Amino acid sequence: MLYFANDYSEGAHPEILRRLLETNLEHTPGYGRDGHCANAKKRIRDEIGKPDAGVYFISGGTQTNRLVISSMLKPYQGVVAAESGHVASHEAGSIENSGHKVLTLPGRDGKIPADALESFAADFYRDGNYEHMVFPGMVYISQPTEYGTLYTKSELSALLSVCREFGMYLYMDGARLGYALACPENDLSLKDIAELTDVFFIGGTKVGALFGEAVVFPGGSEPEHFFTIIKQQGALLAKGRILGIQFETLFSGGLYRKIGKRAIDTASKIKKDLLRKGYRLYTDSPTNQLFIIMDNERLRKLEEQVAVSFMNKYDDSSTVIRICTSWATSHEDADRLCELL
Amino acid sequence: MLYFANDYSEGAHPEILRRLLETNLEHTPGYGRDGHCANAKKRIRDEIGKPDAGVYFISGGTQTNRLVISSMLKPYQGVVAAESGHVASHEAGSIENSGHKVLTLPGRDGKIPADALESFAADFYRDGNYEHMVFPGMVYISQPTEYGTLYTKSELSALLSVCREFGMYLYMDGARLGYALACPENDLSLKDIAELTDVFFIGGTKVGALFGEAVVFPGGSEPEHFFTIIKQQGALLAKGRILGIQFETLFSGGLYRKIGKRAIDTASKIKKDLLRKGYRLYTDSPTNQLFIIMDNERLRKLEEQVAVSFMNKYDDSSTVIRICTSWATSHEDADRLCELL
Amino acid sequence: MLYFANDYSEGAHPEILRRLLETNLEHTPGYGRDGHCANAKKRIRDEIGKPDAGVYFISGGTQTNRLVISSMLKPYQGVVAAESGHVASHEAGSIENSGHKVLTLPGRDGKIPADALESFAADFYRDGNYEHMVFPGMVYISQPTEYGTLYTKSELSALLSVCREFGMYLYMDGARLGYALACPENDLSLKDIAELTDVFFIGGTKVGALFGEAVVFPGGSEPEHFFTIIKQQGALLAKGRILGIQFETLFSGGLYRKIGKRAIDTASKIKKDLLRKGYRLYTDSPTNQLFIIMDNERLRKLEEQVAVSFMNKYDDSSTVIRICTSWATSHEDADRLCELL
Amino acid sequence: MLYFANDYSEGAHPEILRRLLETNLEHTPGYGRDGHCANAKKRIRDEIGKPDAGVYFISGGTQTNRLVISSMLKPYQGVVAAESGHVASHEAGSIENSGHKVLTLPGRDGKIPADALESFAADFYRDGNYEHMVFPGMVYISQPTEYGTLYTKSELSALLSVCREFGMYLYMDGARLGYALACPENDLSLKDIAELTDVFFIGGTKVGALFGEAVVFPGGSEPEHFFTIIKQQGALLAKGRILGIQFETLFSGGLYRKIGKRAIDTASKIKKDLLRKGYRLYTDSPTNQLFIIMDNERLRKLEEQVAVSFMNKYDDSSTVIRICTSWATSHEDADRLCELL
Repeated sequence: MLYFANDYSEGAHPEILRRLLETNLEHTPGYGRDGHCANAKKRIRDEIGKPDAGVYFISGGTQTNRLVISSMLKPYQGVVAAESGHVASHEAGSIENSGHKVLTLPGRDGKIPADALESFAADFYRDGNYEHMVFPGMVYISQPTEYGTLYTKSELSALLSVCREFGMYLYMDGARLGYALACPENDLSLKDIAELTDVFFIGGTKVGALFGEAVVFPGGSEPEHFFTIIKQQGALLAKGRILGIQFETLFSGGLYRKIGKRAIDTASKIKKDLLRKGYRLYTDSPTNQLFIIMDNERLRKLEEQVAVSFMNKYDDSSTVIRICTSWATSHEDADRLCELL
Repeated sequence: MLYFANDYSEGAHPEILRRLLETNLEHTPGYGRDGHCANAKKRIRDEIGKPDAGVYFISGGTQTNRLVISSMLKPYQGVVAAESGHVASHEAGSIENSGHKVLTLPGRDGKIPADALESFAADFYRDGNYEHMVFPGMVYISQPTEYGTLYTKSELSALLSVCREFGMYLYMDGARLGYALACPENDLSLKDIAELTDVFFIGGTKVGALFGEAVVFPGGSEPEHFFTIIKQQGALLAKGRILGIQFETLFSGGLYRKIGKRAIDTASKIKKDLLRKGYRLYTDSPTNQLFIIMDNERLRKLEEQVAVSFMNKYDDSSTVIRICTSWATSHEDADRLCELL
Repeated sequence: MLYFANDYSEGAHPEILRRLLETNLEHTPGYGRDGHCANAKKRIRDEIGKPDAGVYFISGGTQTNRLVISSMLKPYQGVVAAESGHVASHEAGSIENSGHKVLTLPGRDGKIPADALESFAADFYRDGNYEHMVFPGMVYISQPTEYGTLYTKSELSALLSVCREFGMYLYMDGARLGYALACPENDLSLKDIAELTDVFFIGGTKVGALFGEAVVFPGGSEPEHFFTIIKQQGALLAKGRILGIQFETLFSGGLYRKIGKRAIDTASKIKKDLLRKGYRLYTDSPTNQLFIIMDNERLRKLEEQVAVSFMNKYDDSSTVIRICTSWATSHEDADRLCELL
Repeated sequence: MLYFANDYSEGAHPEILRRLLETNLEHTPGYGRDGHCANAKKRIRDEIGKPDAGVYFISGGTQTNRLVISSMLKPYQGVVAAESGHVASHEAGSIENSGHKVLTLPGRDGKIPADALESFAADFYRDGNYEHMVFPGMVYISQPTEYGTLYTKSELSALLSVCREFGMYLYMDGARLGYALACPENDLSLKDIAELTDVFFIGGTKVGALFGEAVVFPGGSEPEHFFTIIKQQGALLAKGRILGIQFETLFSGGLYRKIGKRAIDTASKIKKDLLRKGYRLYTDSPTNQLFIIMDNERLRKLEEQVAVSFMNKYDDSSTVIRICTSWATSHEDADRLCELL
């Protein structure tokens, strides 16, 4: 059986496990006050060129989204997201449970176009009844998006200036950011992202860690006493160093980039093969997730030998599936998949 | 100046004020434990033919919606509403603030068609990831809708059976219910509504009261200790009898119906006149709210003599406005408006 | 039967009803955007000598407490109150439901002594684990307290300076403020209160109104978009003028003071009589609430002719009861009560 | 330097790391739907003799407490805890943030006596105003308590019967349960706990795991769709197997008991030595946490060579400190500590 269903079906990159083993008997203070966390923060600050950035390690993506959004919004504000945005659709109402509305825009290939955002915000303030409605206080985007697509530098800049115009924070969910950074098509470095957002996170769970995401407040927008808010939401690990060691490792010797590169190399090999064989792509993703419209009959056969993800029904005779590579995908597996397709 | 902007720009029906005056020096227990509240509840129970119905008096519509929805839903559930539904758009995120998502459907003239609801719910449970999403736990409808339209008995029955199929409560917002009940086109009595919903409210604020809505749980779906939940949400009046006296009066001698009738009589007079003169209606409302597409030039002139409500821009040269009658609208005012149109 | 159970068992002061009647057919904008609300706000601002104060009218006390506390606190903060404070004990967990802890101090006759507050706050920040605990962000006091006692000007000043030292807001619940203001023993004017608190409310419900409280932000601490927050919490009345008219009336021709005076005059007459006859007072209240330790046998007889409030068991043979006067208490009734005691 | 400050300053028991390594490249479904989680659940169910118990793995203790309490309580209910209870004091208001009040009782050596609980609950329902107050809906206890003490079987039975009498759930926080189970003084087996509580958790973080707690609903009290609630609170790990593997390992070959035994053996050696040398104990703890009243001068010297925890000031010249052993404490370290004391 070949596994292309997702990028979180294995454990961690071996280097991370090695470091957990190596450091296992160290005595360190709890709750992220240890040297590994300090080190990991320093490396991330160096990488983005922001020596004063706030950096926090959180166990998972939904938790991170909930913490960031609920602590930065005022009670009368909601967060704007694409309809396909993870917070809008697949987090079981986590944002609403924290008290805030998710205001959705249709999106284009998973992205929010700056002009659509501008229209939305301008219309809001033009409506005579806007004080009876939820104020847009933040814009949530994902890089790469839920459809595997990428924001360009100019698109991100355009979003940021709409955010500035209407007093909204810009927040980037980077659950798979490592895969975006590794794409030849990508023109947004970590440094750029730190300049062009108010807050973002660098995903670990889907990019080689056992679990964990690094939230970064590059500028001055970090909520006061964010540590206590993390505790209050039940998101503070006693052995915080477990997260610190993982990010320390991911940001040593270029590991985060290597992990991304392997997944992108195998994904583009598969993508080229798909296109050559005439498969239809549902979105044109340059990242580690490929969305393919596949004939139901062919899909049934493929699934006997390959684990893929069902996305949605396309029409009566075909289905949108996802093929996903990761740090753990070997070139051999990619080649074998191409043979089967 | 003529006033047709809304149905809450005056005080209360004179009969209500008369009763407040008359009872002013009575000594009664607080928090709705008084005889007037008991009386009012009994009259409502008699009217709907449900001697055991739970009846509670709440100050306003948003408060009522928030209380009912948040106390009946489980944490993992949201409420389904039409995009135009009041809870979805004009309550400043009150439902989300209470922890629940509003799941929107496009709606048709402000109504949720039973087949659209069924597709939505069936699709939800067919999605392999539904446990990562917000469960539909209740359906919110308004009678009349935000566009002045009415559910028929067969439409409501159809909604109820979809609700039963998928384990959802059916909740009717009756902020303007008195105006629905008074329409010749309406085939849904209070008794029918009590049979065909799990919970609904009978609006007072917009139907002749100073303020107040009567929530009714006709069957067994009343949340435990709803009294305490009302207190907790800050919605319990110390002088609860103020609400009791108002509903006691509205449900004495057919006052609630008389108030509805006056508004519907004047509204239909105006509607007939509008149609005769060739005005375009935005929705075909048989109730006390008329939605008219009006040329901007003509609107500017009309507004010099008549207060109306702006709804939304229709196109570059015209606007959707609302003309609204109430218990306080005289036939003379309606005639004068017709002359000006 | 004589009624001394509480100060909210009648309707409204007749002057208020007269004004509601008089203004009933005026057409005004909704949601508190009308002239009566504007007028009432102006009168309150004049009274406190703060022309820029934020003033909002809310239906009831629990709602006001919840709105003020939850909108002024940060997520990691709680509100400090005396154990006997209304928010701590008798609001069904309303503050906690809004997400914040009530941090209680023992209190002395219902009051928080400044030195106890200082110790509490100093201890908090001395505790090495304070970032794992709820930060004190606001202090809640009542004037008069739940035991009828009064803060003096110097006590209030002392509390304020502790609040300033530790970055806490000072909030005064004035549900019965009118009765404090009318006490000869009182040395805190509305102007003083406006200088010595960050936010307070002037109670209407228990001081002659049908319902309603006026929240005042005398300085710069008003939460952004408080109007929208009011709406979101379900606390915005469509016919906002109903509240405006009541406060406009209470603050015309000294009515608020007259109402207070009547209650205080009758209460002190009763208090003097009680002391002369050797009754034991549970607290030494100079306001309209008298707390008396009464032999159970005597109480049983008294209750045949007088409605009083049960507070708590004192010991096996006696009980603490409350006798309460109001604007509606006549001197005749006070005299008759004295005869029965 | 010797380390006795807490039981979470190292990584994980080596056996757990070994298993994480061994299973690292397995492909498994996400979100806890994998074989390791299934296995771990089965072993826990076998251990407690409840084949149908609900078992869930959560990242940390505060998160677990928040999830369990907020999903089992009704909106009008709060949770009863000892003043020293972790949820009352050291979780940054996590329970209140989820909407519920923590109702505190004084406690005795960290425990809630059944008779104190009964008085509290009986008084609550005897109070005529109880519907204006927070209903006690659950009792939270810790085993061992925050002071290292243990409930006996008869104490737990007595608590349960008070809970049954007043309709409250009984919930046990077992963050350090492994250390209780290993005490010779303990008479409560996992089977007993499963019979005598409605829900409890088996702590991993402080008992040898990298992180993780196992919530157990032994009877029928598991909230509907608890999986979705976990997701909504941001507590669902994508790589859920990381938790499954850890508990699978802890419950293989008696590892959980071995870990407990090592800590208890070293702690009792130290305790005996302390008593022999005339140290005063703050509480008489038979578990892995020893609370000692120590002269400040002596403490200063000790801290040069041993890391201990500061608890609180005892008086002007002495301090309460905590000495804590764990699975990682060697007999040699315990002996060295005894020499230094």
